[in-house]
Amino acid sequence: MAEQWQDVLDHAVAVAQKAGKVVREALQSDRKVSTKSSSIDLVTQTDQKVEQLIIQSVKETFPAHRFIGEESVAAGEPCDLTDEPTWIIDPIDGTTNFVHTFPFVAVSIGFLVNKQVEVGVVYSCLEDKMFVARRGKGAFCNGKQLRVSDQKDIHCSIVATEFGSNRDGGAVEKIFSSLRKVVCLPVHGVRGAGSAAINLCLVASGCVEAYYEIGVHVWDVAAGALMVTEAGGVLMDVEGGALDMMSRRILAANNRHIAEQIVGQIQAFTPQRDDAPPQQHRRFYPK
Amino acid sequence: MAEQWQDVLDHAVAVAQKAGKVVREALQSDRKVSTKSSSIDLVTQTDQKVEQLIIQSVKETFPAHRFIGEESVAAGEPCDLTDEPTWIIDPIDGTTNFVHTFPFVAVSIGFLVNKQVEVGVVYSCLEDKMFVARRGKGAFCNGKQLRVSDQKDIHCSIVATEFGSNRDGGAVEKIFSSLRKVVCLPVHGVRGAGSAAINLCLVASGCVEAYYEIGVHVWDVAAGALMVTEAGGVLMDVEGGALDMMSRRILAANNRHIAEQIVGQIQAFTPQRDDAPPQQHRRFYPK
Repeated sequence: MAEQWQDVLDHAVAVAQKAGKVVREALQSDRKVSTKSSSIDLVTQTDQKVEQLIIQSVKETFPAHRFIGEESVAAGEPCDLTDEPTWIIDPIDGTTNFVHTFPFVAVSIGFLVNKQVEVGVVYSCLEDKMFVARRGKGAFCNGKQLRVSDQKDIHCSIVATEFGSNRDGGAVEKIFSSLRKVVCLPVHGVRGAGSAAINLCLVASGCVEAYYEIGVHVWDVAAGALMVTEAGGVLMDVEGGALDMMSRRILAANNRHIAEQIVGQIQAFTPQRDDAPPQQHRRFYPK
Repeated sequence: MAEQWQDVLDHAVAVAQKAGKVVREALQSDRKVSTKSSSIDLVTQTDQKVEQLIIQSVKETFPAHRFIGEESVAAGEPCDLTDEPTWIIDPIDGTTNFVHTFPFVAVSIGFLVNKQVEVGVVYSCLEDKMFVARRGKGAFCNGKQLRVSDQKDIHCSIVATEFGSNRDGGAVEKIFSSLRKVVCLPVHGVRGAGSAAINLCLVASGCVEAYYEIGVHVWDVAAGALMVTEAGGVLMDVEGGALDMMSRRILAANNRHIAEQIVGQIQAFTPQRDDAPPQQHRRFYPK
């Protein structure tokens, strides 16, 4: 049992490397942009191509496994997480960065069994950093073991977050109000890579003490979440309860004390869940 | 005259490389932190060591040249810009990133004659990206010529900015109000590298369409400003007038149209100028 899911991890790393190569090549040419839920929720042909590449490759080796992929869900497939072995895939986390050649673009692959993340792979393609984690076996970047920051003082912390693509007035009000309270704690600074997967890897690497966001999807965070816990960090809901990966809300931190100080600043809201019935969350594509 | 200041550029690149090596080595060990104007305005022994290294090296080759360095000014030296050849140095732009090992840390060296930037060198030490510009000769990153984004639609743009280290209530109010208006234009996204020099290089590289900030210092922006104009971009004050490099306010963009759309969102304020008399802006050090 010691090597359980090692084959999955090896396959995920190999296909993430292959996907990353496609992403890097596409940066030179193919960045035709469409939109999804809004004019600033972007998708490119490369997102769709890379997701198909990953799913096809995995299916050949693990024909019984299930999939939840960002682009498949956008195309109308259900986002149902069962107890079966399931690959949760974001082909390009940071599509806006990709479109603008901003240097944080990741392939994110999580593997869950009994709804628990067993393997996480995040490949930051432009930095050429391969982050991997296996439950109970630690988290690594290019072979070097990761450890969260040992900072205990929120005033000496960096917090990562994002504005996301929701421009609904009520949500924007809460996002700004929360962020302002965090900035004025004060903290050392606020950063955002523009990719949830990479923000989680930054927590795991000790470069930021915490990351929170409302509006993420399960494919953005499944792999990165394991990176954080395997590097010694904690995960919770933005209101302090247990993390629910389908809830589209996440708070990751180096320790519980830092996490709870951030919970105290957040004005939460409740986006539509990832596992809502398909007709409710299907996105529109321009004709 | 064609090769004027090439010797300065060559020297700046060589010393920036040497400084970057010291910064990278220090990341492994020496990150003892002090504070300057506030508990979140950080300085380390490495900032001071690297500034001395650069100034000593330049003095040996160009004994008649003058200097404005972040740490020298913090230690009480005047920040007087004359028409004489002057090196303006930020030994570590992104000190907070440095302290946290966040991957955007730059050595910034600008060279001015008659108050005009002739040479700019920004070395992003952890990415190992050497950005160089000479007035009238273009801007380059690791030898590849830079060109700003050709985006003309603000709604398809990424804007970089920072919260800075000012936590004064009035300033924070204006910073958040401006940022919210920019986010809700809407734009594709907002990013911030945590280093003004690197934000300017991101504009020059076409990764973001614009960058604005109130609270920067002349040593943060002197080199990066030339990178932007030599890559085809524009510089102005955040209220739309001519850029005044001592005013601690800057707006850089890929074109005038994008810049003016951002000017329309900014609630400006006026920090104390960099060239204010020394007794007014000397920072405190903890005993």
